[in-house]
Amino acid sequence: MEIPEINKDRLLRDLNAVSRIGLGEGGSVTRLVFSVHELRSRQLLVHLMNQAGLDVRVDAAGNIFGRLAGAREGPAVLAGSHLDSVVQGGRYDGPVGVIGALEAVRAIKESGVPVPAPLESVCFVGEESSRFGFSTLGSSLVAGDVTMDDFANAVDAGGNRLEDVLSSLGIYRENLDSLKRDPETVKAYLELHIEQGPVLESKKKKIGVVTAIAAPSRFRVVFRGQADHSGTTPMEMRKDALVAAGHLITYIDEVCREHAATEKGRVVGTVGAVKVEPGVINAIPGRAEMQVDVRSITSGSKRKVAGLIKKRARRIARERGVKVDLMTIRDEEPVAMHPGVIALIHALCEERGVPFEVMPSGAGHDAMQMAKITPTGMIFIPSVNGVSHNPTEWTDPEDICLGTQLLVEALLRAAHAEI
Amino acid sequence: MEIPEINKDRLLRDLNAVSRIGLGEGGSVTRLVFSVHELRSRQLLVHLMNQAGLDVRVDAAGNIFGRLAGAREGPAVLAGSHLDSVVQGGRYDGPVGVIGALEAVRAIKESGVPVPAPLESVCFVGEESSRFGFSTLGSSLVAGDVTMDDFANAVDAGGNRLEDVLSSLGIYRENLDSLKRDPETVKAYLELHIEQGPVLESKKKKIGVVTAIAAPSRFRVVFRGQADHSGTTPMEMRKDALVAAGHLITYIDEVCREHAATEKGRVVGTVGAVKVEPGVINAIPGRAEMQVDVRSITSGSKRKVAGLIKKRARRIARERGVKVDLMTIRDEEPVAMHPGVIALIHALCEERGVPFEVMPSGAGHDAMQMAKITPTGMIFIPSVNGVSHNPTEWTDPEDICLGTQLLVEALLRAAHAEI
Repeated sequence: MEIPEINKDRLLRDLNAVSRIGLGEGGSVTRLVFSVHELRSRQLLVHLMNQAGLDVRVDAAGNIFGRLAGAREGPAVLAGSHLDSVVQGGRYDGPVGVIGALEAVRAIKESGVPVPAPLESVCFVGEESSRFGFSTLGSSLVAGDVTMDDFANAVDAGGNRLEDVLSSLGIYRENLDSLKRDPETVKAYLELHIEQGPVLESKKKKIGVVTAIAAPSRFRVVFRGQADHSGTTPMEMRKDALVAAGHLITYIDEVCREHAATEKGRVVGTVGAVKVEPGVINAIPGRAEMQVDVRSITSGSKRKVAGLIKKRARRIARERGVKVDLMTIRDEEPVAMHPGVIALIHALCEERGVPFEVMPSGAGHDAMQMAKITPTGMIFIPSVNGVSHNPTEWTDPEDICLGTQLLVEALLRAAHAEI
Repeated sequence: MEIPEINKDRLLRDLNAVSRIGLGEGGSVTRLVFSVHELRSRQLLVHLMNQAGLDVRVDAAGNIFGRLAGAREGPAVLAGSHLDSVVQGGRYDGPVGVIGALEAVRAIKESGVPVPAPLESVCFVGEESSRFGFSTLGSSLVAGDVTMDDFANAVDAGGNRLEDVLSSLGIYRENLDSLKRDPETVKAYLELHIEQGPVLESKKKKIGVVTAIAAPSRFRVVFRGQADHSGTTPMEMRKDALVAAGHLITYIDEVCREHAATEKGRVVGTVGAVKVEPGVINAIPGRAEMQVDVRSITSGSKRKVAGLIKKRARRIARERGVKVDLMTIRDEEPVAMHPGVIALIHALCEERGVPFEVMPSGAGHDAMQMAKITPTGMIFIPSVNGVSHNPTEWTDPEDICLGTQLLVEALLRAAHAEI
């Protein structure tokens, strides 16, 4: 079979066009879900899909499907990602997968190679949680794994409730299910995405074959001691909440490193935020609040390490005469990619001699939702310096083209194969 | 010699009158230096001094001296403190020493006992650093140990420069020295103050005989690592600035405890504030800034421990692949109280059978400045729960009366004695 080649100039031109929408300081990109900029980027996509001669469908939530008919009717192979971004994010988190899928489908269409199944290039709305604190909105509606109650706390900084935004689009509790895609109409879902981490770059690999998407357990730890004068309170009379926090911060780092060294299921643990009260130089901290994020692609490992951390927090509190409160923020299950899709991408890389790494995804993606209704896989391309959610987010254009070219082949193989 | 007795009702009434000026939420008191409330409290003091028949002098900065002539002319014995407060502070930090000194002097005057030397009850302006970031303003002007250059960074939250406030009072670079009190005119300085710490209460003592005032070494420690995605960055590729900070926070606690257990010169060390960037749950901290406060009444011990902390900060940075910056905020010398004055207060407590503790002061006081020009000593009274700089700051009225009664005797002995 002749392999259609992508049009590199067109791919990079369209990616550039998307990055100019919501462009801000220092080359940053801000396209919050349902903002004017995000709407404009979706409008551009619809235009490009129409131009490519795809059959465009936009659902009530704004998810976009650009379809190329197959030789036979039947379930379609989907590929896509999202166009919304975090505040002052980068150019490629999301758009690479959307414009990459568009380019792959239009290259296949132009080549005239026969495709047994329909192909769809997809854009999901609201993958980022930056506006409403709710992630993978569009894909979870398509996967049908969400209810109106899940939006109860989804409010943006301006006080707008996600529920109200949805109802202004005609989406209510009563018809939420109508957005769900019938799994019978989908054969597989593929997502091209930047790695957002340093692994591929540091290992000099071009492609990541994603095995599973790690899910975070997030919790808040609050130590409550006593705020005293830093000059007048002898060391042995102190109840310093920050010293307790310091012990937990170093423990989390150690326990995750140990676990990585001795056990199979890798776990990463991070204290991303600490808030100290009163927080002045001449007062012993009476309260220290930490936000802890523990991730793994192995549910058991994650549970075990999170359990050890909580146990240690209680022990530190006991030993240091302070109080501790532990509050769950979120507790999600890791999502495995489909073995058949993993094998398909794996084989493709081997055959083409592309240096690849079989690896987990530490970040969440729309693929987590799509995996609930169809065989799903992800293709990672390298992030320069591992940086993402930042204006300096960058991927070499050659790597974007390589990933997109592999996506062409993956789409065709998925359309032909029994998965 | 007959010992004059204080008028307890009058003492507590006048203290209450002061606390009502600047009264705020939850019983808090806010009288920032040169604010309307602080000016009103000084006005009240001048009124009370006049009422008591003292000879009142107010210098250009607003320091107030209420003088009772002695049998002989010559150097005066001074006692006092300050009326300004922190933001939302308590009732007694400062006023106890000002109104206590007033009550002591007027009780002596009323009793008619002969006093060989003049006595002065004193109020210094601006002991707290809360408004301009500059502490013991009035007393350092009186001690003559300050220049206009020292006020270079003294600006309040509204952008007002301390230098401009002083010049509006007619105080300029050229005449700053005119505020200095001629040391020949002062025989001794005594300051009654709340402990602001938990030692007296926990040891069930009524009076603290202060040996020295600890001086802080304050410095900023900034660890700079790399802000990465908390999900996608393996533990061994991280440069987590907060983990580095965590190691330093726990070290500071440990080294001060060890030092207290093994060496004579007690040291206390506190990390009062931590700022983390970017400070979100899904990002590894790329920057962590700490404010460290190390105090001791022994200069050598303080220097040693501060040195150990800085050395450890550099070692942590080296071991964890992050960068560290160390910046001195302030480095002051501890101030010893005068042996003669310490002995005088000590003897008084023993003779009267008052349970007392010989102890350092962890907090700074106007006595630090006055010690530069005259034999100086401090009398502490207990703080309930060791709390200060807080609306719940409290001292039992009986303890206030006991401290003031001892001040009467201390003033008389200082006036009679060779110090």
